Amino acid sequence: MSELLDLAGIFVFALSGALMGVRKRLDVVGMLVLAEMTALGGGVVRDLILNVRPAAFQSVGYVVVPVAATMIVFFWHPYVARGMPAILVLDAAGLGLFCAVGTAKAVEYGLSPLHAALLGVATAVGGGMLRDVLAGEIPTLLYDRQLYAVPAMLGSAVMAGLSFYGLQGWPATLAAAVLAFGLRIAAMRRKWRAPLAKGIEE
Amino acid sequence: MSELLDLAGIFVFALSGALMGVRKRLDVVGMLVLAEMTALGGGVVRDLILNVRPAAFQSVGYVVVPVAATMIVFFWHPYVARGMPAILVLDAAGLGLFCAVGTAKAVEYGLSPLHAALLGVATAVGGGMLRDVLAGEIPTLLYDRQLYAVPAMLGSAVMAGLSFYGLQGWPATLAAAVLAFGLRIAAMRRKWRAPLAKGIEE
Amino acid sequence: MSELLDLAGIFVFALSGALMGVRKRLDVVGMLVLAEMTALGGGVVRDLILNVRPAAFQSVGYVVVPVAATMIVFFWHPYVARGMPAILVLDAAGLGLFCAVGTAKAVEYGLSPLHAALLGVATAVGGGMLRDVLAGEIPTLLYDRQLYAVPAMLGSAVMAGLSFYGLQGWPATLAAAVLAFGLRIAAMRRKWRAPLAKGIEE
Repeated sequence: MSELLDLAGIFVFALSGALMGVRKRLDVVGMLVLAEMTALGGGVVRDLILNVRPAAFQSVGYVVVPVAATMIVFFWHPYVARGMPAILVLDAAGLGLFCAVGTAKAVEYGLSPLHAALLGVATAVGGGMLRDVLAGEIPTLLYDRQLYAVPAMLGSAVMAGLSFYGLQGWPATLAAAVLAFGLRIAAMRRKWRAPLAKGIEE
Repeated sequence: MSELLDLAGIFVFALSGALMGVRKRLDVVGMLVLAEMTALGGGVVRDLILNVRPAAFQSVGYVVVPVAATMIVFFWHPYVARGMPAILVLDAAGLGLFCAVGTAKAVEYGLSPLHAALLGVATAVGGGMLRDVLAGEIPTLLYDRQLYAVPAMLGSAVMAGLSFYGLQGWPATLAAAVLAFGLRIAAMRRKWRAPLAKGIEE
Repeated sequence: MSELLDLAGIFVFALSGALMGVRKRLDVVGMLVLAEMTALGGGVVRDLILNVRPAAFQSVGYVVVPVAATMIVFFWHPYVARGMPAILVLDAAGLGLFCAVGTAKAVEYGLSPLHAALLGVATAVGGGMLRDVLAGEIPTLLYDRQLYAVPAMLGSAVMAGLSFYGLQGWPATLAAAVLAFGLRIAAMRRKWRAPLAKGIEE
């Protein structure tokens, strides 16, 4: 179950990477590299900081799923792009799941709640930042004022808090993931926006 | 004392990250991400290469100080920006301190003097490079011809040399830091510039 | 022998980094930073993922050779640039060697053939991607449609396959490297190109 959810998150993130490749008119190799980096980047950074061998280099599915996502985008990208609203929902699910799972793994390896939450956020948003930098753009989450990192922060904080009180395992992870997912969806629906610094005009 | 100086360096680097965020019209989340990355990036890279858990993920202050810097810039960025000459002096202090501390830590973990100095430079300039790349710019130190990396190289080399002759501990670290700081200030004052390749016109 | 080939690969990658620096009108410090990053980046990423101290921080030659390459480009870049066809051949040799050596090291540290091949590709192309991102460009291999990553993928796959059947050591590594090199040269000569996604016009 855990593995399946992970792979679903990786699939969605890989789709977004491959689609960015199409938008930038990259060739199929570029699409694949972006898909792998987007899908695996956040988790690799997390595992490097935890000083363990990255999960992406131990599981076959983690490597193969982005290949499948790239193939789908390669042949059917107009349909995939048209399905973007659905993909944004899936992406929100991936965001929620990755921040919760990342935080839980960090707690397991002995980080304090504060640092575990920080690493959970990095897990959730790292791949997308890598995707944008490689595509020659400023990472979307830095400027687009949609709440993308904030739901991950909240989900990670809740996960870290639950772990602190001894509430670990699947129910807790799922609760934190659902919370981050819900907040992200609400932020998209209601167009909540992060503020600019004082005195900067919109 | 050591911890306090570290936190001062982190604070100054975080200010420069958050100010870059204002200049690029990022929202408050983007400002915070840039501040954390600028302040912690160099040290995290150093610790990953040394194969130890990054200090940033063990100390509360390292994570919280950039939050404070972001808040200050968020509310009072015109004053902070007007204080840039003072901040450049503080940044020079951070540069000196980080190259000396980074080199000392690398020596402690068994690197040769040459490699310890290299890692010291990476510690000092890594965060700023990350800040610039994330903000969509070529890292300042690559092209602006001001001597920014060179003082760090000198400070790191001196620190590595002192360690090689058994002179470690606070006095040595401070001496190397002050040397790098002084060279950086002198380079700014006297507008010393790094040369372009032969035959490239200014 | 192994060390000499490694250093030759590092030298060629460092040349390409320093030349990029000249093209972007960077100063000598920027040229050196780009040369070091291009030459050492791929191997450092490989070793971080394998959880071992990066080879670049244990060998004097790895650090010094890029300095020499930078000096050569600094004084004689018009000649070096005119020799680009020869350098592209050398770069193909570096690509072949790095993917084979990277895969072999990953197998040695216990990665599965699939993951070892993935890490071999990262070793071969990582430095060049870092060079392009730092120079403010989209990594060449993502969009230029020349087959650059594909020969590395093939060489890495062959190396992983040979290791799987117990064929390790120099002859196997050299065979995989020569294969990747030959494919890269053939791709350049015959202008083989990677396809764009379905329906994207050339």
